[in-house]
Amino acid sequence: MADRLIIFDTTLRDGEQSPGASMTKEQKLRIAKQLERLRVDVIEAGFAASSNGDFDAVRTIANTVKDSTVCSLARANDKDISRAAEALAGSDNKRIHTFIATSPLHMEKKLRMTPDQVFEQARLAVRFARRFTDNVEFSPEDGYRSEPDFLCRVLEAVIAEGATTINIPDTVGYAVPELYGQFIADLRRRVPNSDKAVWSVHCHNDLGMAVANSLAGVKLGGARQVECTINGLGERAGNCSLEEVVMAVKTRRDFFRLEVGIDTTQIVPASKLVSAITGFPVQPNKAVVGANAFAHASGIHQDGVLKARDTYEIMRAEDVGWTANKIVLGKLSGRNAFKQRVQELGIPVDSEAELNAAFAKFKELADRKAEIFDEDIQALFSDESVTPHDEHFKLISLAQRSETGERPHARVVLAIGGKEVASEADGNGPVDASLKAIESQVGSGSELLLYSVNAITTGTESQGEVTVRLARAGRIVNGVGADPDIIAASVKAYLNALNKLYTTTERLNPQTSLAP
Amino acid sequence: MADRLIIFDTTLRDGEQSPGASMTKEQKLRIAKQLERLRVDVIEAGFAASSNGDFDAVRTIANTVKDSTVCSLARANDKDISRAAEALAGSDNKRIHTFIATSPLHMEKKLRMTPDQVFEQARLAVRFARRFTDNVEFSPEDGYRSEPDFLCRVLEAVIAEGATTINIPDTVGYAVPELYGQFIADLRRRVPNSDKAVWSVHCHNDLGMAVANSLAGVKLGGARQVECTINGLGERAGNCSLEEVVMAVKTRRDFFRLEVGIDTTQIVPASKLVSAITGFPVQPNKAVVGANAFAHASGIHQDGVLKARDTYEIMRAEDVGWTANKIVLGKLSGRNAFKQRVQELGIPVDSEAELNAAFAKFKELADRKAEIFDEDIQALFSDESVTPHDEHFKLISLAQRSETGERPHARVVLAIGGKEVASEADGNGPVDASLKAIESQVGSGSELLLYSVNAITTGTESQGEVTVRLARAGRIVNGVGADPDIIAASVKAYLNALNKLYTTTERLNPQTSLAP
Repeated sequence: MADRLIIFDTTLRDGEQSPGASMTKEQKLRIAKQLERLRVDVIEAGFAASSNGDFDAVRTIANTVKDSTVCSLARANDKDISRAAEALAGSDNKRIHTFIATSPLHMEKKLRMTPDQVFEQARLAVRFARRFTDNVEFSPEDGYRSEPDFLCRVLEAVIAEGATTINIPDTVGYAVPELYGQFIADLRRRVPNSDKAVWSVHCHNDLGMAVANSLAGVKLGGARQVECTINGLGERAGNCSLEEVVMAVKTRRDFFRLEVGIDTTQIVPASKLVSAITGFPVQPNKAVVGANAFAHASGIHQDGVLKARDTYEIMRAEDVGWTANKIVLGKLSGRNAFKQRVQELGIPVDSEAELNAAFAKFKELADRKAEIFDEDIQALFSDESVTPHDEHFKLISLAQRSETGERPHARVVLAIGGKEVASEADGNGPVDASLKAIESQVGSGSELLLYSVNAITTGTESQGEVTVRLARAGRIVNGVGADPDIIAASVKAYLNALNKLYTTTERLNPQTSLAP
Repeated sequence: MADRLIIFDTTLRDGEQSPGASMTKEQKLRIAKQLERLRVDVIEAGFAASSNGDFDAVRTIANTVKDSTVCSLARANDKDISRAAEALAGSDNKRIHTFIATSPLHMEKKLRMTPDQVFEQARLAVRFARRFTDNVEFSPEDGYRSEPDFLCRVLEAVIAEGATTINIPDTVGYAVPELYGQFIADLRRRVPNSDKAVWSVHCHNDLGMAVANSLAGVKLGGARQVECTINGLGERAGNCSLEEVVMAVKTRRDFFRLEVGIDTTQIVPASKLVSAITGFPVQPNKAVVGANAFAHASGIHQDGVLKARDTYEIMRAEDVGWTANKIVLGKLSGRNAFKQRVQELGIPVDSEAELNAAFAKFKELADRKAEIFDEDIQALFSDESVTPHDEHFKLISLAQRSETGERPHARVVLAIGGKEVASEADGNGPVDASLKAIESQVGSGSELLLYSVNAITTGTESQGEVTVRLARAGRIVNGVGADPDIIAASVKAYLNALNKLYTTTERLNPQTSLAP
């Protein structure tokens, strides 16, 4: 039988480190459930010691997810590891992932520690983590740029202490496939007890080769775990894409000869969910999950392709979860029809209250939009207000107008902490006017870093889905909002972001604190 | 001295084959000039025989570009090759690129030809092409899935006929680096006259490995030309990204030991231009050209990164042409200041008339928007109306309003072929209402496939840049429009797309006719 390739998803940890991709606990849980449905082997749920919010998220995921191993990151110190263990306590199937940098540059400039100190701390960390679980992963951060003799010494020691997975990150995305594959092979050959651990690869995409590097680590190097994220989400150019690495192993099984446990039909739903929650769009020419990735999904049905599909297609769109746009429901559809479609789409609904809230939103939408597509239903559920949530700022009503030659104008009525306030403003455009009207009441002082809109389905009657990214005092949040009226969608997204900005979750600065 | 790696850009040919990416002659010329500024070695300007429009585009580019070789694609027949030669006649530095499929699947299902017929046609095509130029490239389409013995026979014959470049396409993106590299190496070893030609790689990104495959073809296989596109634009998951392959070779010069002639500071301007013209967004976590690719460009300046940049960055943002958002001009800026900034930004201006048109647009914008950034100026020039163009449909004025609980409403005044018409409509939202008002006058019967908006700069006062994609009777066009008012931007983009839909350019169905 072929070896199993372990798929370790770190969308919720390394993916979330992207500026602007931070998520609420509810959002992380929703993604974790989708990852479980996708049947990833290990879900890295977060970095428990980084903030109370992330601790909560890891704990909630550990208590909920049953079919995947749940993992928390921890720096190589007792405090971080205890915190990870505490967050994971409710899981029967948990892993602690501890790391410390081993490259000369990182040890000197970031840690200000000697190699011997790093060696000792790595050993003690793994020993301590083993008190809480038999499933311990160790990562030498910036491993690929580390001095091999020193790295071998560290790895031998941590395996001796009981690390069961050894992960070699290319933290800065500097590797090329041959060299990275050879690097892993050399480490495995040189570390005397290397057969006592599963070897893992963790690649970044700065030179566009994260997938190929990961697979070289597997094929040439003998690694049997790949760390990856949905849509390749992650800092800078992102991480290895789960969807690409999985489909490469499946499509080229003749070459890789490995089994993966992934239910590939859940790939596109996972991609859409992560994109909707983080506000990071997927470009159309993205492999597997881009809107154009399959000819048949791009809006044209060309004879040549349909007649002899394998002339140009090496994968089938339906195998990765693409479905055709379909009118599924309308204003006359009842609660049962709605509930059934939600189930068919595999959207997790936690309670009758949540279903009722979503159904109410659905009816409201159906009053304004004749045809409701699957994508509209998915958008309903990625809307924050369906999952009960502390909404300090809430839209009551909006009126706006613009006319050539005049200043656009907006009037917004908000509830702020339950109290209604109204305000008006002019602006460059109706979105600017609406947001200015809100800001005049809220006085957030935040800066708008990003604003984007995508139509949820085709046709001019589609809902617009707006993403905004706000920054204030070094904190960055995303907000999303969907509405057939693009100005209303913009206002919803803006309020969603403000609500996040006004929740007090402290978080370590990710980029200076971690990044295997 | 290190070998030179030839960079062959096919944004204007294979990139343009993406559904919705087709461009006007003016747009192609604008990109070609930017490619020349980027110092690509070869510009594949189009497929002259595919349409009169593309013939014109190739001819115009051949007559204009001096510093790069200009190439046209041609099927392996005399008619196509004559047409390519005719389009390229004005160039001193031209190449004809002819191709025919050699895989069993493509020969049987697409060409309905025997291998012997294909062999003969390939030979005759190269012989014929050599009548017009010494610089002839031959591609066996779907080469990577071709039977090696047959492929060697074809390649030996075309080299004997005078093909100077042999390009091996992985047409369907099925390759993995090791196998593809070995495939090229084997071909070069087995073809007796292989040293008489430069070998080239052409990879698609369906499994996310186009860049790594291309580089394996170079490193393991000995190829010395890479075919690639800006932003990895191309059908399905796209082609090998120029920016990634170039930066990988530069950053890992220790490994590749090759020279490339590219001026990397022109990479980001090229990326933005291609994205603006085609309406294909670049995802933030895209290597090199994504908004987040460099930490410093993502809106946060973190101490750790700034202090010891090389802890996390292996390339410098400024080396690939990232510049900071800057307020550069305002409503009091004069024509000279404007002209100077346009020159500093490297925007090509062909005539005083074009500069005047752009300056008029600039003044109009500055009246409505206090701060004008470099990005606004770039958007001005990607706006169609600056480059004189046949505008059948033109916006005269727009008034729209929406209010919670009421149907959004729009009134649009258009000039259609010079005659003013007004119309009103309700809609789901103000964009829907505005587009319905237009459609009620135009009656195009087109379908809206895609609608997206991005803010051109940060801040709520930013202009919105809208992209729409329309389909009618199998034809797909993109329109773009920028305005501080998002509804006005939407209308401009829609009219831009309608103008394209109503120009009569016939074009071969790309996906069934070609695709090395």
